[in-house]
Amino acid sequence: MQFTLNAIGKIHTCYKQKFGIPRQAGLSPSAEARIEIFAPYNRIEAFEELKQSSHIWVHFVFHENRRTEWKPKVKAPRLGGNKTIGVFATRSPVRPNPIGLSAVRLETIEHSSKGLFLVIRGGDFLDGTPVVDIKPYVPYCDKIDNATNGFAADAPATYAVQFDEETLSKIRAISIANLEPLIIETLQLNPAPQYQTADTSKTYALRLFDYDIHWQLASVNAIRVTGITQATI
Amino acid sequence: MQFTLNAIGKIHTCYKQKFGIPRQAGLSPSAEARIEIFAPYNRIEAFEELKQSSHIWVHFVFHENRRTEWKPKVKAPRLGGNKTIGVFATRSPVRPNPIGLSAVRLETIEHSSKGLFLVIRGGDFLDGTPVVDIKPYVPYCDKIDNATNGFAADAPATYAVQFDEETLSKIRAISIANLEPLIIETLQLNPAPQYQTADTSKTYALRLFDYDIHWQLASVNAIRVTGITQATI
Repeated sequence: MQFTLNAIGKIHTCYKQKFGIPRQAGLSPSAEARIEIFAPYNRIEAFEELKQSSHIWVHFVFHENRRTEWKPKVKAPRLGGNKTIGVFATRSPVRPNPIGLSAVRLETIEHSSKGLFLVIRGGDFLDGTPVVDIKPYVPYCDKIDNATNGFAADAPATYAVQFDEETLSKIRAISIANLEPLIIETLQLNPAPQYQTADTSKTYALRLFDYDIHWQLASVNAIRVTGITQATI
Repeated sequence: MQFTLNAIGKIHTCYKQKFGIPRQAGLSPSAEARIEIFAPYNRIEAFEELKQSSHIWVHFVFHENRRTEWKPKVKAPRLGGNKTIGVFATRSPVRPNPIGLSAVRLETIEHSSKGLFLVIRGGDFLDGTPVVDIKPYVPYCDKIDNATNGFAADAPATYAVQFDEETLSKIRAISIANLEPLIIETLQLNPAPQYQTADTSKTYALRLFDYDIHWQLASVNAIRVTGITQATI
């Protein structure tokens, strides 16, 4: 049994590469994104009452998931990255149907000659992600107070994020709203591959908007931002 | 841009007709259902760690939604049934991509020579509903404590459910676990069409398993169960 979905829109976001995207929604509230709605779905009548919802569900497609064969087990970053667990026990992008689900804050709905856009916060989407549905978050059935999850009961532990003085000056000189908190929220999740032992000599680069943020693990619970450069595509 | 999904399973439930299905998940905790997982996805390795989640997200297809053209507005039962609102502000089954989303309690996972089944509670699924994905409910990102929704902040008001004495005896003689609480949970939501004014002379029939439950509106906030008969298909 097969079903065909049409993209109703796509997401424009600061996350230009997979590396560093928060592993769940809600972890980077400074990450603002815009969902562009495609014709014929870009009619304001279809969305206007949605403003009464503080949060929305975004159903999207993991479009850069290239694996075609299905595997019952996937790597779990939560468990160190080497252990595998059942794919349906995870929110991994590599799954039989590459459908993603994230609850994000709905900031506003923009409708102009440029089109219809939902402005959202707290997403975990790669730039260009296709969207297949938008639904309101309905607290009385979606907010399950007694729900428990043995693997991921709490948000991941965060790292302290420190800056070189010169780098911080450069960041503050860039006219992107909330760039500094966005960098902190993204790096405090420690995007380094979890299967590596903490390697304080290695420098990583993480792309946000058109900038590469350079950083190192400073200790077992701290990250140091050492530079910011214009990205070369 | 189009994407193709494969059904990974289908749901066996007491709701054999659309009429009377709770309008959201979680409203009928006595409604037990079984998700049958199809080959090649019916491998226990893909599911076993899922037991650590008390609740799961079921992504499904509204397979009996026959409408093919897209409309920006749909009827809202919450608002009396005559008023229409933007389709993306609702969880209506009639939407551009007929994808549904429900959080349900995971009771157990059965794996035997008969196949692989997830036993769930609190579903709002029509019998035979195709499933396209299963994900764990992850409290720290899905349970949004400060979420608000102007249309549906609280569960709908419930009706008192009364029984004719003879009908209650018949119900209790039927060997289906939890049939009596299931009838109460289903009818207390008043499945009667919301655009009708309360009509105490009309008798409705609602099918659960292979039985038709006959009932009337007894008053503005009470429902009376007047009979139960074996369904004729």
